[in-house]
Amino acid sequence: MSFAKLDQLGRKLEALEHALAILGADEATHMAIGGGEKRAQAVATLAGMHHRQATAPEIADWMGAAESEALDTDQQAALREFKRQYTNMTCLPAEFVERLTVARMRCEQLWRDLRAKNDWAGFLPALEGVIALVREEAAMRADALKLQPYDALMEQYDPGNRAADIAPVFDELKRFLKGFVPEALEVQAARLGKAPLKPLSGSYPVERQRELGLAMMAAVGFDLTHGSLSVSHHPFCGGVPTDVRITTRYKTTDFLSSLMGVLHETGHALYEQNLPQDWAHWPLGKARGMAVHESQSLFVEKQFGRNPAFWDWGLPLVEQHLGEHWSKADILPHVHMVEPGLIRVDADEVTYPLHVILRFELEQELVGGQLSPVDLPEAWDAKMRAYLGLSTIDNPADGPMQDVHWPGAAFGYFPSYTLGAMMAAQQWAALKQQHPAVDEQIARGDFETVNGWRRDNIWSQGSRYSTPELLERATGEKLNARYFIEHLKQRYGA
Amino acid sequence: MSFAKLDQLGRKLEALEHALAILGADEATHMAIGGGEKRAQAVATLAGMHHRQATAPEIADWMGAAESEALDTDQQAALREFKRQYTNMTCLPAEFVERLTVARMRCEQLWRDLRAKNDWAGFLPALEGVIALVREEAAMRADALKLQPYDALMEQYDPGNRAADIAPVFDELKRFLKGFVPEALEVQAARLGKAPLKPLSGSYPVERQRELGLAMMAAVGFDLTHGSLSVSHHPFCGGVPTDVRITTRYKTTDFLSSLMGVLHETGHALYEQNLPQDWAHWPLGKARGMAVHESQSLFVEKQFGRNPAFWDWGLPLVEQHLGEHWSKADILPHVHMVEPGLIRVDADEVTYPLHVILRFELEQELVGGQLSPVDLPEAWDAKMRAYLGLSTIDNPADGPMQDVHWPGAAFGYFPSYTLGAMMAAQQWAALKQQHPAVDEQIARGDFETVNGWRRDNIWSQGSRYSTPELLERATGEKLNARYFIEHLKQRYGA
Repeated sequence: MSFAKLDQLGRKLEALEHALAILGADEATHMAIGGGEKRAQAVATLAGMHHRQATAPEIADWMGAAESEALDTDQQAALREFKRQYTNMTCLPAEFVERLTVARMRCEQLWRDLRAKNDWAGFLPALEGVIALVREEAAMRADALKLQPYDALMEQYDPGNRAADIAPVFDELKRFLKGFVPEALEVQAARLGKAPLKPLSGSYPVERQRELGLAMMAAVGFDLTHGSLSVSHHPFCGGVPTDVRITTRYKTTDFLSSLMGVLHETGHALYEQNLPQDWAHWPLGKARGMAVHESQSLFVEKQFGRNPAFWDWGLPLVEQHLGEHWSKADILPHVHMVEPGLIRVDADEVTYPLHVILRFELEQELVGGQLSPVDLPEAWDAKMRAYLGLSTIDNPADGPMQDVHWPGAAFGYFPSYTLGAMMAAQQWAALKQQHPAVDEQIARGDFETVNGWRRDNIWSQGSRYSTPELLERATGEKLNARYFIEHLKQRYGA
Repeated sequence: MSFAKLDQLGRKLEALEHALAILGADEATHMAIGGGEKRAQAVATLAGMHHRQATAPEIADWMGAAESEALDTDQQAALREFKRQYTNMTCLPAEFVERLTVARMRCEQLWRDLRAKNDWAGFLPALEGVIALVREEAAMRADALKLQPYDALMEQYDPGNRAADIAPVFDELKRFLKGFVPEALEVQAARLGKAPLKPLSGSYPVERQRELGLAMMAAVGFDLTHGSLSVSHHPFCGGVPTDVRITTRYKTTDFLSSLMGVLHETGHALYEQNLPQDWAHWPLGKARGMAVHESQSLFVEKQFGRNPAFWDWGLPLVEQHLGEHWSKADILPHVHMVEPGLIRVDADEVTYPLHVILRFELEQELVGGQLSPVDLPEAWDAKMRAYLGLSTIDNPADGPMQDVHWPGAAFGYFPSYTLGAMMAAQQWAALKQQHPAVDEQIARGDFETVNGWRRDNIWSQGSRYSTPELLERATGEKLNARYFIEHLKQRYGA
């Protein structure tokens, strides 16, 4: 009876989430420019309705009463996730959420303006304001969840992830990369010395790139009857599981830029399209979290798309759509290019983790109060020099001002990117153990074995398990840096 | 205080209406085919939220209390329209609305299937069920609104329209057309005898047609920063006033088919884009009704688009985009083609009113009980033979089964089409009285005088006046068949 009320509530919330998801995708792809203000009002009002309905006091009573009802295993799991969602949404007072929202939005707007001007001094007071509120937020979440403050923030993105578990794994990876980045660069230089990079011809019509992208999406498993590909300024995966909207942007000078992005978003889309549909109106039916989601996108981008075997099958498709012949020896140096740089989002898979580990270390100190925002440029620069040999001291725009996450109050999110990369490598290793011939299958364009494994072990599980539990059940062990390290060695090492 | 509550309610309803409008446009243009079932659930749930919020009992108290508050003129008008909306939405019991919705949806589904099979006997029981419920509906609406039953149905679409006012005007038009249709056909035959119709070359790429459509939309006043043009199976005008979505479908063999449709939808869009924005969250800020809306779409399609002066300006644009030269003498016979036929939606502006008058007469008898659904095929055939000289007795699919309106329980809607055509002609005459040079302006591609008149007299008024009041204020007199008759005589007569 009480569970039935939660079930009904789930259907109402799902309808509002459906509207918000489609309005969001529409805004980035088809909305008229002048429609933005009314759209923002409508979305804010709908989000408010959703929040009020999802946090109503009577829900606590329903959840309490449902505990003693005869529930099947799925319903018990659903109840647990209803509780998790309710606790995460109600542990901050409404008045505080409003203050945080105002501070965050003002800081984001300021960031857009001042990053372009490289004006750290102008930006600092707004960031200090956000960080002061985030410290309060972390304390309140920690209190409600009985967790350490930084863990309580991460809990929003990846339930079950704890800094004490992640830090040693990240440390091992960092130690490895210290020696490995120079090695990979040497290997690359030697190879390019013998055979220079084949230049892109630079004339790739958008419509042909789109057809190539659609063909690869469909081949790796994207269901085109339950989703579509559009154009937007920033690529994303949005929409709803029955109608997943992914986007890309095209450069007519470089087909790989859009294609690798399409593969990445297709990875997110496969997870959404294959979530358990019977649970779609429960929090239990949602994707587990950001790290697992990123493991699925990176799986398609890297375990498929940067895998040499993939191009045995993929290059004839490139030739068919773009009318241009590429050999594997020509294409691989493009998709395996390593180049240390200042900007995280432009980084390759070898150097990317160092950008994330730097942020993970700094944001724990910011939340914990050991580091003051005013000291960020020096702290950032010291780590950039230590990890990547690059300085940002005169260039805060490409240092601590480069990401929207901190002005947006999203602390505890950064680790998800590298956890996703490590989890993807660990999944690949586990799957290859069971199915040693996957590379040969991929070389034939047959992705069914791999996708079947992922469907069983990841996609169909929704939010049944915490992030670490899901990984351990799928791969037989806890997060282990070894698999990602082996993956990098094999692909980029001497 | 109570008015402020209505104002707040309006903002919530506007957000839900915004979501429903964009979801509707998205469904017809961009939704993945497999997304339909979840979309239908989400839309039904959101529509239910909207209905519950718009019909809550406390609203009656707020409206009562607001009566004695100090309101300005706009607020008084807003209160009156809040009341109208509330009465129209609450005058049927929820249980009845559910029964009607089920019967209507089943009858529409059956209609889709059985019209294709020309199976009147199979369709009749479902239609009888709907008509029985519509008679109940009309009685309940009549009781709540203190109107005649058929008028109470029309009141949903065109507030203030009464059958007793419309019937004599339609009768005058019918008498005129009895003699005029043969005359127009003779004139046309004589002209085509001298100069045969120039054939369409039949090779019009979609992208070029789209560019031509966009150029004409923009020129006649469509604000492309607050709207867009897409493709859908059935053309429509949807979205919200700040982001109006119009659609078309293209035939590469015939550019006029899409172009005239784009002009028609642009007419709807201009009305929406120019509604009073300050009232957007009140029922007062909405377009007045179906007849006025149709008068605006037909104004652009016919007073602009089928006006010879329009093509002085338009033909160079056609040549520029399609690379094909057309003279006025060549294009006008295409856009002025008269051809009596069985199907309303394919009819030209001369014969179209006879299709509508036939339905107006029959549906009053159906609602009033003087005509039984079982006798419809004979009654329809008798009028088709009398008005257009065509028989449908062996072809109910193209007779009483041709429209979705009756299976969809939309009785009282049909008159709006011809009222719109007559009102457009009456508006054009009033405007030309004040601005005798409008044809010359249109021939130069200058639509500002016309649009200025329409903005002042129609668009900016929202729902301030009833349909007949709005027309009388704009044109200085009540609905008068003379203007439409003069328009037809001048364009199609001897």
